[in-house]
Amino acid sequence: MKVLPGGISGVDGFVSLGKHVGIKKRKKDFAVLYSQQPCQTAAVYTQNQIKGAPLHVTKEHLKDHKAQAIVVTSGVANVATGEQGLLNATNTAQAVAKELNIRDDDVLVASTGVIGTQLPMEKIEAGVKGIKQELSRNGDFAEAIMTTDTVKKEICVEHDGFRIAGAAKGVGMIEPNMATLLSFIVTDAEVAPDQLQTALKTSVDKTFNMTSIDTDTSTSDMVIVMANGHVKKVDPASFQEALDCVCLELTKMIARDGEGATKLIICQVEAAQTEDDAKKIAKSVINSPLVKTAVYGNDPNWGRLMMAIGKSGAGQIKEDKIGISINQKPVVNKGKAALEYDDKMLIDILKDNDEIVVTINLGVGDAMATAYGCDMSEEYIKINAEYTS
Amino acid sequence: MKVLPGGISGVDGFVSLGKHVGIKKRKKDFAVLYSQQPCQTAAVYTQNQIKGAPLHVTKEHLKDHKAQAIVVTSGVANVATGEQGLLNATNTAQAVAKELNIRDDDVLVASTGVIGTQLPMEKIEAGVKGIKQELSRNGDFAEAIMTTDTVKKEICVEHDGFRIAGAAKGVGMIEPNMATLLSFIVTDAEVAPDQLQTALKTSVDKTFNMTSIDTDTSTSDMVIVMANGHVKKVDPASFQEALDCVCLELTKMIARDGEGATKLIICQVEAAQTEDDAKKIAKSVINSPLVKTAVYGNDPNWGRLMMAIGKSGAGQIKEDKIGISINQKPVVNKGKAALEYDDKMLIDILKDNDEIVVTINLGVGDAMATAYGCDMSEEYIKINAEYTS
Repeated sequence: MKVLPGGISGVDGFVSLGKHVGIKKRKKDFAVLYSQQPCQTAAVYTQNQIKGAPLHVTKEHLKDHKAQAIVVTSGVANVATGEQGLLNATNTAQAVAKELNIRDDDVLVASTGVIGTQLPMEKIEAGVKGIKQELSRNGDFAEAIMTTDTVKKEICVEHDGFRIAGAAKGVGMIEPNMATLLSFIVTDAEVAPDQLQTALKTSVDKTFNMTSIDTDTSTSDMVIVMANGHVKKVDPASFQEALDCVCLELTKMIARDGEGATKLIICQVEAAQTEDDAKKIAKSVINSPLVKTAVYGNDPNWGRLMMAIGKSGAGQIKEDKIGISINQKPVVNKGKAALEYDDKMLIDILKDNDEIVVTINLGVGDAMATAYGCDMSEEYIKINAEYTS
Repeated sequence: MKVLPGGISGVDGFVSLGKHVGIKKRKKDFAVLYSQQPCQTAAVYTQNQIKGAPLHVTKEHLKDHKAQAIVVTSGVANVATGEQGLLNATNTAQAVAKELNIRDDDVLVASTGVIGTQLPMEKIEAGVKGIKQELSRNGDFAEAIMTTDTVKKEICVEHDGFRIAGAAKGVGMIEPNMATLLSFIVTDAEVAPDQLQTALKTSVDKTFNMTSIDTDTSTSDMVIVMANGHVKKVDPASFQEALDCVCLELTKMIARDGEGATKLIICQVEAAQTEDDAKKIAKSVINSPLVKTAVYGNDPNWGRLMMAIGKSGAGQIKEDKIGISINQKPVVNKGKAALEYDDKMLIDILKDNDEIVVTINLGVGDAMATAYGCDMSEEYIKINAEYTS
């Protein structure tokens, strides 16, 4: 697999734009992704029971598994906005469809930002005017979908003659459940409808769905993959591999850019009795505020890992069989401090690395799972204590 | 019900002490509670699957539902310490029993502090010498069990001719499950063994178990209640009422003193279809880092409450029936901003109160539940990034 420079626009047949229309004060807040022809399209959505208006409209428009464009607004999430919110999402799709001269229901809608506020429709409708001319291979799509993200998140890979590229956004309110914050993936591979949905679900379950920044599940999460079919006869296994790669890299970018984060934390659980146990424990570690603050503060407080394992709700845990290593150095053996362990070693690992890999061996089976997260700093509090006001 | 001054020593027949033996650098770290006669005793313990050595010893000693003393050490939790840890907990109980001239298995043991470190047994054994003379009605029990607590937590109430008093500690690693961090309750009421256990479980389920400071469940949680039987023929309903009151007040003290907290948050969920739904939603709100940081920052970001309701996993949520008020002012009506709502009103409520009551009406039934928590500030990060090092 080869990683190519550039992101979402690395796949032939797709163009995009990102610009400022006035939802935010200054930053880009409006993005469009356009395919020169209708695409086979699959999507997964948040499992939060309160869902944003754009998700309802996108689901409706994807009933035929076809789409040709996605319009994304950032700054206002269009959630908890009642009938008016649904109307605004529908009208946004219609305005874009008209301007691009395509079917209304081939335009998908996504929004991210503050909950409970209506979209400024006049500004959006003014912004939609003339977009056809603004679409290009160098559009600022990945930038315009950001909220408190500090870096653009996009990747393009080539594999077995086809390409897949993706862009994502998300830094807070992230513990996806079946889906994640916004991620848009495009490919020139020809993929059958059922295969596309299954492949997406498979990838998302082990990547986006294994990420958590703050345990809060957004009302607006969605991942969409559009396949324009330019490259025929793609091997399904190759396609899955490449899609896994794109989803995993975007996942790591999201975890690393978590609000206020200074370090990426990867928790690998091995030798569990079931995959479900391994997932529960990996998530419990990644989500523990006490683990996250210890990693941030270079505090060699490995006991908090034992606490997080024990509280995970996993079915089969034997305290005296647990082994833990951090960046491959032994920390816990048979449930207590490893003989080789000393605090200074762990402090040095935490100080010297911005990627902390916690490997937990449960010693009770052969199932495994990996979760992705980040540390927690004062900056997380600052960002979120001042978000709307 | 009458609240009396003083705490755990307000009940006749109990004496205590709190002193420094050298587990911590300077602060008090060793506490003993002693009853002049063996007591009917009940306890509930953490559901974390990794349990501290003291819990195993206490459970063993409580097989006969009788106890006469509790010894508590703070600074080292004696968790993830293997066989040596169990031996140290047993030896601590034995040393105290010998000094007080009571049965070994009438001494219960509890510890709180860093996980993974062995207790300094020489210091503890030296500290145990002469404790019989140090016990008094004014013992510093509630102070000596503290770790990062900023205030002592104790209360004594009188009701229908009997008294119940309790002390508790806990500021972080708190989302109890079946039990809480350390809490010790004493009463002069005569209570039958089965009744005592049932009454404790009933109280704990709606008080300590509905508190969360940081979603982390400690390995050392326990609540113990000792009844010396001085006051005969106590009405069971009166006893439950008084025990509920003591547990609720201690719960509020714990939530209000959460690490780095500036405000107590109480979330009342009403008109849910089931009590389980109401509990899930109340806990989800109390646990959401985005809700907690908004309350801390006086940010009128009520959309985060909708997010927390939706992610709770509750079975029956109808977005367009949800009503929310904060300190009795309407914020959400039928799933969107209430007509009377404006941001300034909510900012003022958040600024002017250190007790924020969020009332959520689901409009789908008549079940209810209340959860207790606190806001989240930069101080939480500071405290926990520097805990051991």
